[in-house]
Amino acid sequence: MDVFEDPGSTREAILAAAYRTLCKHGYADLTVERIGEEFDKSVSLVYHHYDGKDELLLACLEFMLDEYRAETGTGPPAAPREAMAAFCDRLVVVDAPPEDRQFVRALTELRGQAPHNEAYRDYFTRSDRFFRTRIETIIQAGIEQGVFRDVDPERTAGMIHTILAGGFFKYATSDGDEWLSDLREELREYNERTLYQPDDP
Amino acid sequence: MDVFEDPGSTREAILAAAYRTLCKHGYADLTVERIGEEFDKSVSLVYHHYDGKDELLLACLEFMLDEYRAETGTGPPAAPREAMAAFCDRLVVVDAPPEDRQFVRALTELRGQAPHNEAYRDYFTRSDRFFRTRIETIIQAGIEQGVFRDVDPERTAGMIHTILAGGFFKYATSDGDEWLSDLREELREYNERTLYQPDDP
Repeated sequence: MDVFEDPGSTREAILAAAYRTLCKHGYADLTVERIGEEFDKSVSLVYHHYDGKDELLLACLEFMLDEYRAETGTGPPAAPREAMAAFCDRLVVVDAPPEDRQFVRALTELRGQAPHNEAYRDYFTRSDRFFRTRIETIIQAGIEQGVFRDVDPERTAGMIHTILAGGFFKYATSDGDEWLSDLREELREYNERTLYQPDDP
Repeated sequence: MDVFEDPGSTREAILAAAYRTLCKHGYADLTVERIGEEFDKSVSLVYHHYDGKDELLLACLEFMLDEYRAETGTGPPAAPREAMAAFCDRLVVVDAPPEDRQFVRALTELRGQAPHNEAYRDYFTRSDRFFRTRIETIIQAGIEQGVFRDVDPERTAGMIHTILAGGFFKYATSDGDEWLSDLREELREYNERTLYQPDDP
């Protein structure tokens, strides 16, 4: 993640180290000690800021979501069709470098904690709501500008969000990715057929 | 799962116990000892059949997939439209009893092991292939019978499979389920719009 490339504070540097350690070792083999090594300062400094592995990883997730939110904004986009296409293409990544798949896998491992861990479930419930609301905002803007059809924004946003979540989940937890470019194409067609107003003849 | 209600052999009884223990305790707190207690016989008998927790859980997954396969069959369905509707409705479960959500959560926890565990990844790669192929077979039958449009069966099957996987994943790892009935409806509309031939006027 680009957001971790130039950490602006000790806290961010610790979160960046947690992120890199998670991508490298996976959740099960992750320890605060390993994060301390990656952080290249001291384990006790990590403990000074965070009580343990899960608290640190949850802070890491919140930080990434905040950065994503700041980057994409929350208001209506000026160009809804382009915004929707960019949103979808960013999440159905074709020909991604290996480190991107590592990130998707790491995130899915954390999400795999949600069934039995309330703090993770709470986080992913909120992040789902954020992504769904973002898609809904784009759809509403498109309808208001007359470039999208008059769909139910909430329902259509839920469907697109589910498609993106499904692609993400399958990509993280199976081998191969020959189906990804088909999925991207199929999602584009879904948007054409369901959402976008046909171009004027 | 109904398949575990009346186990026909010691092996099946152990798998049934593993399944119940997984739903009750979740993956992280699952031990062969706990499965032995649930099995109500002996831990050593469990060890006699399986080397450890993951081997046992993987056998459990294989058993459930085999049962599902035997139940639904692999050949072309006689009534493709009804088969597709039943397939989708079975996987986007609205108003499910709490134990069904426990099952979905348990299965997702196991799938959450796949990013760092090759045996789980291999299993879920194969089970994805099975479900996608099943959907593809239904689509092909529908096209041949003239009741489905002339879509690309593989691509459309991939999309439907992704929607089902996304719904499953979100349901397992977030709170609330107010979006589920919308998703079911939206998927039905997707099938109407993309797949089913319009009824004769």
